[in-house]
Amino acid sequence: MQKSRRGRRAGGSDTRNDILEAARLQFGELGYGHTTLRSVAAVAGVDPRLVLHYFGSKQRLFIESVELPVDPELVFGSLFEGRREGAGQRAAQLFLAAMEDTETQRAMIGLIRAAASEPEAAELIREVLTQRILMPLASRVGADQPELRASLMASQVVGLMMARYVVGLQPLASASREQLVRALTPVFDHYLAGAWVADPG
Amino acid sequence: MQKSRRGRRAGGSDTRNDILEAARLQFGELGYGHTTLRSVAAVAGVDPRLVLHYFGSKQRLFIESVELPVDPELVFGSLFEGRREGAGQRAAQLFLAAMEDTETQRAMIGLIRAAASEPEAAELIREVLTQRILMPLASRVGADQPELRASLMASQVVGLMMARYVVGLQPLASASREQLVRALTPVFDHYLAGAWVADPG
Repeated sequence: MQKSRRGRRAGGSDTRNDILEAARLQFGELGYGHTTLRSVAAVAGVDPRLVLHYFGSKQRLFIESVELPVDPELVFGSLFEGRREGAGQRAAQLFLAAMEDTETQRAMIGLIRAAASEPEAAELIREVLTQRILMPLASRVGADQPELRASLMASQVVGLMMARYVVGLQPLASASREQLVRALTPVFDHYLAGAWVADPG
Repeated sequence: MQKSRRGRRAGGSDTRNDILEAARLQFGELGYGHTTLRSVAAVAGVDPRLVLHYFGSKQRLFIESVELPVDPELVFGSLFEGRREGAGQRAAQLFLAAMEDTETQRAMIGLIRAAASEPEAAELIREVLTQRILMPLASRVGADQPELRASLMASQVVGLMMARYVVGLQPLASASREQLVRALTPVFDHYLAGAWVADPG
């Protein structure tokens, strides 16, 4: 049999991307528990063995299908820009701008929903967040206990998304971006650089 | 027909409580969407018309079935104790102590899960939180924009619960209560009393 360019289902990075896209759809619609390698393969229009070949397991497929709307390396680089001053404000601005982007908002809320409703997914999301967001952030914090600081930042970010977009708590849900940047700046400064974390003694 | 004390299913506050307990069970196990007045009645061992009589609708039954593990009036009273100083620290201590109580933790995580996975439940939870937590808190804040301050407090509390107990982000999940009280105190002070909320101009 001759390999043909037409047969993009036969392999290569297009197939891989098709599978990832199908996986995002399925995980989003059915949840982690009800999605199978077979159902993803059906949506992508490929042989289930191909999904297994590329990703090895449903866990791996889920982890790789999580799309971060921004590149953490890029974002955290611009956060500190070699200096500590103003990092809290830049973090607040970057976060709010990202959150008001429809695509980003949808992706992040999808992760929150999955984590809240499926313990199995929560474990995988913890891995994704730790590897791809918390560790890159912590490596740049430049203060004591950077990992705790990064996870506290993450807790406020997740909570704001829950309160503002998922539950719609007022007046938080209708507050302006500028108002929230002012509210969050001292909090992010405190989490990133405040002299408070170490246990006494 | 003679009314008998034995027939506690026939009405009265015991019946109402039985229905509420059955509702909590069902909403927790099946989620909001799959629970019906009929299924709650079956679990409680009462006539479905009695559920309708007491609560009027599934929405109302859900709202009334939400058990707050603490009495907000009591907690927020002790938060301010007539003075502003130390309110952030007292809030952090009260919150962390409440969170480490197994019952409270279970109840709050149940609400978070319901809000995240079911938009219909999220709307009802917004009503419960606003009426029973945010408004009583805001009424005691004694600073400009008390409602925004209360909802920002709530966002950090929800986010910490998600990160620490639902997702299990490290090292937040294993941080000591004392460490988190120190981390949260300035944040709660800022949200409760900081001079930052008003829009400029």
